Amino acid sequence: MELRLIGIGTGNPDHITLEGVRAVQTADLVLIPRKGAEKRDLADLRREICARLLGDDARIVEFDLPTRNDSGDYMAGVADWHDAVAAAWQAALAAQTPPAASAALLIWGDPSLYDSSLRIAARLDPQPDIRIVPGITALQALTAAHRIPLNEIGAPVLITTGRRLREEGWPDGATTVAVMLDGGCAFQAIDPEGVTIWWGAYLGMERQILRAGPLAKVGAEIVAAREQARAAHGWIMDTYLLRWA
Amino acid sequence: MELRLIGIGTGNPDHITLEGVRAVQTADLVLIPRKGAEKRDLADLRREICARLLGDDARIVEFDLPTRNDSGDYMAGVADWHDAVAAAWQAALAAQTPPAASAALLIWGDPSLYDSSLRIAARLDPQPDIRIVPGITALQALTAAHRIPLNEIGAPVLITTGRRLREEGWPDGATTVAVMLDGGCAFQAIDPEGVTIWWGAYLGMERQILRAGPLAKVGAEIVAAREQARAAHGWIMDTYLLRWA
Ligand SMILES: C[S@@+](CC[C@H](N)C(=O)[O-])C[C@H]1O[C@@H](n2cnc3c(N)ncnc32)[C@H](O)[C@@H]1O
Ligand SMILES: C[S@@+](CC[C@H](N)C(=O)[O-])C[C@H]1O[C@@H](n2cnc3c(N)ncnc32)[C@H](O)[C@@H]1O
Repeated sequence: MELRLIGIGTGNPDHITLEGVRAVQTADLVLIPRKGAEKRDLADLRREICARLLGDDARIVEFDLPTRNDSGDYMAGVADWHDAVAAAWQAALAAQTPPAASAALLIWGDPSLYDSSLRIAARLDPQPDIRIVPGITALQALTAAHRIPLNEIGAPVLITTGRRLREEGWPDGATTVAVMLDGGCAFQAIDPEGVTIWWGAYLGMERQILRAGPLAKVGAEIVAAREQARAAHGWIMDTYLLRWA
Repeated sequence: MELRLIGIGTGNPDHITLEGVRAVQTADLVLIPRKGAEKRDLADLRREICARLLGDDARIVEFDLPTRNDSGDYMAGVADWHDAVAAAWQAALAAQTPPAASAALLIWGDPSLYDSSLRIAARLDPQPDIRIVPGITALQALTAAHRIPLNEIGAPVLITTGRRLREEGWPDGATTVAVMLDGGCAFQAIDPEGVTIWWGAYLGMERQILRAGPLAKVGAEIVAAREQARAAHGWIMDTYLLRWA
């Protein structure tokens, strides 16, 4: 069995590559997770992509995504959740007659970036062949929307998480820091002096929001815009680039 | 005038997104640089993408890319080169009658990552409107080909250049380092103990080469494979991920 992890970008259905289109269209079935309410928009996007690419007669198989236990040890919680998702994939695949020779999963952004699908796939037994189709990441949607380069000329870029930025502060020696997986404006934990921020939420979607400027000046405005948008839509995904000069 | 910087991925014509396809197809003209001999394959790929997307009657405008002066101060040389490329774009656009309302440039990988197009575009006078279409980067082609995640769970990733790795050694505190723009196996400059490498050259192309393993074990093999491939094809582009555990 071939399992295809297909990056679909971060909200714009046109982010998918020609390679991704073909990989979806030629798969025997497409596995679509049903997520909790706050992620309904994301599941809808996956369904929209499938509908556009596959038409009506597609073998779309929906399955319930187990919920993650956030209490207790973080890494143990993640491992348990990966086990549970692998079991859900396995069950969804096993329910197919005839068995599928290839199955596709539509992965938010790129399958390599802060995504657990590869680790979950490694738990399947028997091991399927894995094929990865790259997709546009949230960081690329961010830099494209702001029309900025990720890096300064010949300079490094650190990609990190909101949790790290909050707990560890500005990374030693870094001048450009890209932050993902931030549950709540971790940039507030750093000294804003000399830092510029380029922030984006719902990137690639119609409701995309952008803010940019000196962190000292626009930080509070971003906090407010984020809170308001989150209240309005019930969920938010945001990411940002910090540059220190 | 709208100038579109369209990411086309790193060698596989199917890396382009649906958004990219449309942005190319609806542009008044497509600017294609003629590069030096060693990059003929790359110019050919751009032409192939144009031919596939546009057919014959397309307004493809080729222009000569100035060569870069590598002697003297690095940053000054880069700035001069950006000036010269901007002048070449400007001349190619000015030669159009009627003037183009939109022009597309096909950018290798993603326009945000170690690419100078945005900085060159900023030199145009009058300033065109800029539109960026993200594309699959060499790093995404690398992780997809190796079927590995870029990051460890919740951990940061440093993207840097071969020059930095060679001059500064293993970056303080880093566990995952992605290296681009490496003129010659800079990984030889670091202590290989405990480091795993995932290396790829000509990613996305038919001649793609992959090597992975403990750096101490496969490092020399990569140096040899790189030298051989470079001799055979006349040019090489490679990138790699280093993980320290
Ligand atoms: C679990 S990670 C998945 C990242 C994804 N694999 C990618 O390549 O972008 C989710 C994080 O990505 C970022 N993200 C994903 N989609 C986004 C969007 N449309 N707008 C802003 N940020 C987004 C946010 O930082 C979010 O916390
Ligand atoms: C000037 S940078 C451009 C990067 C490009 N904008 C991207 O998003 O991948 C060129 C570097 O990208 C990497 N690269 C680009 N294409 C590649 C390929 N097909 N295979 C391996 N490495 C590649 C190499 O490290 C090369 O030195």
